[in-house]
Order: sequence, then structure tokens, then C-alpha cells
Amino acid sequence: MDKEAEYRNVRNAALRLASLSDEERSAMLLKMAAAFEENKERIFRANREDIEKAGKDGISNALLHRLVLDESKLASAIEGVKSVASQKCPLHEVREKRLLDEGLVLEKVTFPLGVIGMVFEARPDALIQIVSLAIKSANGIILKGGKEASLTNSTLYEIIRETLDGAGSVMLLSSHSDVDTMLKMEGYIDLIIPRGSNKFVRYCMDNTHIPVMGHADGICTVYVDSCADMDTAVNVCTDSKVQYPAACNAAETILVHKDAAETFIPLFASSLEQYGVTIHADERSLPLLKDYSGKVMKACEDDFHTEFLSLELAMKVVDSIDEAISHIAEHSSHHTDAIVTCDDTNRERFFNEVDSADVFSNCSTRFADGYRFGLGAEVGISTGKLHARGPVGLEGLTTTKWLLSGNGQIVRSYTGRDARHFIHKDLLP
Amino acid sequence: MDKEAEYRNVRNAALRLASLSDEERSAMLLKMAAAFEENKERIFRANREDIEKAGKDGISNALLHRLVLDESKLASAIEGVKSVASQKCPLHEVREKRLLDEGLVLEKVTFPLGVIGMVFEARPDALIQIVSLAIKSANGIILKGGKEASLTNSTLYEIIRETLDGAGSVMLLSSHSDVDTMLKMEGYIDLIIPRGSNKFVRYCMDNTHIPVMGHADGICTVYVDSCADMDTAVNVCTDSKVQYPAACNAAETILVHKDAAETFIPLFASSLEQYGVTIHADERSLPLLKDYSGKVMKACEDDFHTEFLSLELAMKVVDSIDEAISHIAEHSSHHTDAIVTCDDTNRERFFNEVDSADVFSNCSTRFADGYRFGLGAEVGISTGKLHARGPVGLEGLTTTKWLLSGNGQIVRSYTGRDARHFIHKDLLP
Repeated sequence: MDKEAEYRNVRNAALRLASLSDEERSAMLLKMAAAFEENKERIFRANREDIEKAGKDGISNALLHRLVLDESKLASAIEGVKSVASQKCPLHEVREKRLLDEGLVLEKVTFPLGVIGMVFEARPDALIQIVSLAIKSANGIILKGGKEASLTNSTLYEIIRETLDGAGSVMLLSSHSDVDTMLKMEGYIDLIIPRGSNKFVRYCMDNTHIPVMGHADGICTVYVDSCADMDTAVNVCTDSKVQYPAACNAAETILVHKDAAETFIPLFASSLEQYGVTIHADERSLPLLKDYSGKVMKACEDDFHTEFLSLELAMKVVDSIDEAISHIAEHSSHHTDAIVTCDDTNRERFFNEVDSADVFSNCSTRFADGYRFGLGAEVGISTGKLHARGPVGLEGLTTTKWLLSGNGQIVRSYTGRDARHFIHKDLLP
Repeated sequence: MDKEAEYRNVRNAALRLASLSDEERSAMLLKMAAAFEENKERIFRANREDIEKAGKDGISNALLHRLVLDESKLASAIEGVKSVASQKCPLHEVREKRLLDEGLVLEKVTFPLGVIGMVFEARPDALIQIVSLAIKSANGIILKGGKEASLTNSTLYEIIRETLDGAGSVMLLSSHSDVDTMLKMEGYIDLIIPRGSNKFVRYCMDNTHIPVMGHADGICTVYVDSCADMDTAVNVCTDSKVQYPAACNAAETILVHKDAAETFIPLFASSLEQYGVTIHADERSLPLLKDYSGKVMKACEDDFHTEFLSLELAMKVVDSIDEAISHIAEHSSHHTDAIVTCDDTNRERFFNEVDSADVFSNCSTRFADGYRFGLGAEVGISTGKLHARGPVGLEGLTTTKWLLSGNGQIVRSYTGRDARHFIHKDLLP
């Protein structure tokens, strides 16, 4: 079968999926969850083979960590499938309903996007998450996973194909050249979601006419305001940096109001000590780190544009919330930025003026995640301003149609002398 | 001032606009409407000069028709400004609100997109419409109008600048090379909306990294089902074709169920006679047009892919609603497609299976328009499936942010033994 025919089959299977009821699609998910549970030894075996091979190939520890699919990760992935199954159906939701004129009713209703093309990195549990979201939202899904996880991914895929009758809407690609084919399948894929390195995401954006959703960088900032509660500030900044530094929602930059700097910086430093965090400190914060036992170096401008993805951070003292907001506008990747403050006015200003997908107050940037947000799961995090922004769950996989039902109305009646007038009455509460 | 500084000024002015209240922005619009009214003779004078020049340059009648801004068109444009002013504010709308855990509240809230770059064709009244939508939604707007309307556009722009204090958020460009500059201003423009020829829209899409919203083609179809009411079918098809054939929402193709063909086609043909419509008829419809006094020719496959934008149409007899839906999937530009039917099951199938921005039953395709839909006005019609689809009014000019307010929550508390559990309780009705 040629490539185009394969892609067309996915599109057709997605249409069949869309003709099922939400209950039927949720039942498919529960069946899939049970099949993963029953076949877990088979999955672990495949994963161990992948890990063994990766070990021989000498992949990094961070990548190895993501590759592992053990009892606890599989259990939480299976929980995720059940959680997606229990989410409200994102389809056929009437967003607007308006009486245009007698007998002429307009509705704006949600429908599946169509077919999603997803390229993801080492984590095989991402496959489970993404397939669940695609099935629940009645979209076709074409997946290309990282080669390190190829055996785990193909095992998961086999289990899905064995279990589900309607699994034709799911397709797993295996060869690297499939990515370039995917980027060219304009008529068959409605949205590309690349999850991978900054460079890879940009490569996708530059080489396709299909819309791409995702994020390239995750340069997240926590700003500690003048009136921040010190315990909160230390906890939030520490968690944002160290809880999982390889994640895109980990903080890279800490901004500190000058009035808080003398108290906050030494306290924060002593909290970081046990983790061995390297601090790139600007001129004003440097002297306040004299007792820090970890590594400190003078920050250069580039450090504030760097996504460290490791136990390193950049730190800067600012004169005002205005300077903090300007710094974020200039340096942040508009992913997640947080303020620690007790001042409601400053919180409001930060919420209104920081133009990022996620804007937080008094909590860790690490909450930026579809599961934590209550979306059931996420296909990724979007830093684009169009369509879906931030963690993208089921809603981001839908589009809308305008449905207009009449009984013979024509536009000529609304023009010229004796023209009819539109009523334009909203019918939704 | 260099180009980049000019664009930066628009962005900053848009931020100031966003800090005003909705009442203040609506008051700006009413002031602008009054200024157009007061200065109408000045506007008409400029427009007459444009028309005179265009006449000498020998532009087409269709273009000339769009260029005219006379008493009635200005009056309806001014009405449009007032209608936009009276729309519900599209900003700070809470789309989701969820208690993640005690004291940790997540909201998804609408905000302005930022700065819109708009390139539009001859119609100067489009400038008025677009500026109103941008001001109401607190977006900056950078406009490049057609050169035929340059004097009219610059006069409208002068009036806006003279009238509004906060008018820095509006910028009119005049030189053709400004379009290429605009396409490169990635950091300063959030969305490009090109309105113009198919070729021009594709040029924009191919030459920018900024998201582009719009439509290239408008190949709209009306399908007359087996059980259609004949009067309705004739009226709807005639209006869809002839009411304003140069519009993107005019019908180009008429599909007829075989059981309706013998009755419908002669009736429809006699309704078209007075307009002198040329019919490209397939083999099965051709014999049913033997009494038609207008021009008839045998349709070729290309005719069903053609946006005639004039008094021409393609006609085809189909065996079933399935064939009609497949034909639309293959040939439509996913703009607006309509069914005429008395069968609710077929209407539902058409609504569910036709994957277009606007799907209508028993009414004219010409209703696909922001004003007629009750959106106040439109910046354009999108055939993309992401973000806004169909006529785009105020809502399409917004984005959302996720705002998370806590009191010191960190992610570490939700991991490991004794992990806290999320509550995930929806707080909106």
C-alpha cells in the first residue's frame, strides 16, 4: 500500500470513530486500559530490551530516565487513560446559538479536528496518553516515536491494534524518513504536534504547510515581589527549579525585587544547597550569595535567554515589578511565568501584562501540565497564541463548524427597500 | 523612525488600549463613528478622486464596484461601528475555572491577541470595519490597503488619528513593499489576515512565520436532496449564485439528487434565465437544460474545482447524499456548503460529515458573513480549522491565558508517599 493510501485510511477510520457515541469511544479506552494491564509483562520485556540497547548506545541519563516504563509509570499511564475516558465529551458542544431571523437558527458546534500527526521523544508513556486523547476526541492519530523506544512503542501499538476494532484511526510510523513524509501530507493531516528538541520543533515549523502546535523553548521565570512571603518564595522557587529540572515548565530565571533581595537570596541559596544548583547571578545578587556553597558565576546576558534544563539558574535583582514584567517580555518564551507576592494589585498587573500561556501567582511553575490542570492528559504545551494555548487536552483537538438551519431564507430578502431585519437574538443563557 | 520602532509603538499602544475599560473602548468607537459622519464630504471627495484615477487606469467593473464609498455604504459602515461598540466585551471572559486543590484556583481567561497585520483589497469600508473590531478587542492593527483606494484610506486614517487619543494602536501602511516588511515582523505581529486574491493569500502563507488566517478559495456548493422542497431549492440556489456572484460565499457548484433532477433542473434554469448565467452541466444534467435560453456547455472535471466569481456555475447529478458528501470533500474549499432537504436524517448527516467552516440547510450560502451571523462585523472568513473558523469577529481576535492562583503550593507535595491528591472541581456552572 502506498503512503498516501495509508494516510487516507487513517482519515477514513477517524470519520468512523466520529460516528460512534462518546460512550462507545470511552468504552474503547477502558478496554485499552485493561489490555495494557493484562499485557504488562510483555510491555516491560520490550521496554527492558530498549533500555539495554540504549545503554549500549550510551544515551544520556536524562533520556534513559524518560525511556523507562516501569510498574509505577505504566500504572499512572493506565490511570490517565481511565481519566481521559471519564472526561466530558469535547464534541457536539454548542458554543453559540443565535436566532438570526424567524426560522433561521445559527449554531457554533465543536467537531474533531480530523487527523493529528504527532512526533514525540523517548517517553513511551506519551504514546498511551496521546492515543487516549485522540480516541476520546474522535481524531485520527499518526505517531512517530523516538527510535530509543521503538520496541516499547511497537508493543504498545500491537496491543492497541489487537484490542480495538476501530483502531485503524491509530497509525505508528517507525522510520525517521516518515517525519518528512508526514510534514508533506497536507491534505491528510490537520495538525502537527512535535515534541522534542527546540531545533526539531523549528525544523517542523519551517518544513510544512500544515499548522504546527507546540513550543520550542521553555524559559520560565519566577519573580519574587517586594512583599512576598519569604517561606512561600523559597518553596515556590526551589520547587520550580529542582522538582524536575529537565521539564519545559521548570524555572530557568529567578527575578528578585530589590527590597526582598537581602532576605530572600541567602534563604533561597541555603534551600538550593542540597541540590547542587549552579547560579548565574547578576551584579546585584552576586554579593548576597557569598555564603552559598554551590557553584556561583557572574551572569551574562545570554544566561537569561538560556533554557538550562538542568540544575542551573539565572538570577537578577530588579528595581520594580515594571522591570520584572519588561524582563519577562524580552526574555521569556511565553510558556509559564510566576509571581510570588502578597499584593493583589501587583498580582493583577502581572496576570494582565505578562503575555504567556500560563501566568501563576504563589505557586510552582511545575503545575503547568494537562494532568495537574485537570484536563485528564495533554498532547503537549502550546506557546502559540492561536487555537490552544498552554497545556493542550481534548478541547485543543477540536474545531468548530457554524451550522445554519433555515426554511428557505435567501439574502436578497435582507437588501433594498422593504428589507427584512435580522433579529440576532442569543439563544444560549 | 525605523520600521521596527514603528511596529513597537503599535504594540505598546495596544497594551495601553488593553488597560482601558470596555466602556472606554466602546466610547472611542462611538466618537469615531461620529467623526466619520461629520467628515463625510471629505471622505466622499477623496473617494471620488480614487475612482476617477481608477477609471483612467482602467480597472475592472467588479473592482470599481468595491472601491466606491458612497452615502449608503458609509452609512452602513458607520452603523457597523456602532454595532461593534454594542457587542459584548470579548476580553476577561472566564472560559474555565477549576479548583485544583484547596487554595489553588485555575482560570482560563480571554485576552487580546496583540497586534494584527491586515492586508485588504479595494474596499475602503473594510478599513472601518477592521479598525472597529481591533479597538473593541484591544488589539493593535497594522493595515495595508489596496493602492486603488489609497486616498480614501488615508483620509479615513487621518480622521481616526485626529479623533482618537489612543489611536497609536492603528497604523496604515501605504507602500507595496510594506507587505513584505510586515510578513517579516515576527516579534511584533501576532496574526496576519490577508484579504485578496487566492494567489496573494498563498504568497503570504508561504512567506512568513507569523500565523496567517483567512481563506484562499471560496468554492461553495449547494446540494439539492431527493426530497427537497422545489420552491426552496430554486430560491436558495438562485440566491446563492446570483445575489452577489463576486463574493467568496457565492455558490459555484450545484449538486442535484437524481430523483429531484427532472423537476428541479428545468425550474432552476428558468429562474436563472433573467440573469444570463452560464451553466457547465455534467452529462446527466445536460439533457434537462434543453429549454434553457442561456449559455450551456458540457462540464469538465476542472469546472468543479473552479471559483468562477461570476455568473457561471457547474452542475452535476448525483446518485445519493453519499456521493454529494464525497464530491464536496473532494472539491469544496471547505468555506460554505449547503443542503436543501426535508429529511432531518440527511440534514444531520450533512451537518456531521461535511467538513467545512459553514454548513447550512435550506438557506442561501450568502448568509456566511460576520454581520449576518450577528458578530457585529468580520475581519475575514477563515477556512483553517484552527483557532477561528468561518466568519471571524471579535472572538477570533482574542487568545486565552491560564491563570493559576495559589498560596504557596509546590508540585513536590503531589508526588511520592503521602502525596496530596488534586481535587479538580469545576467551579463554572
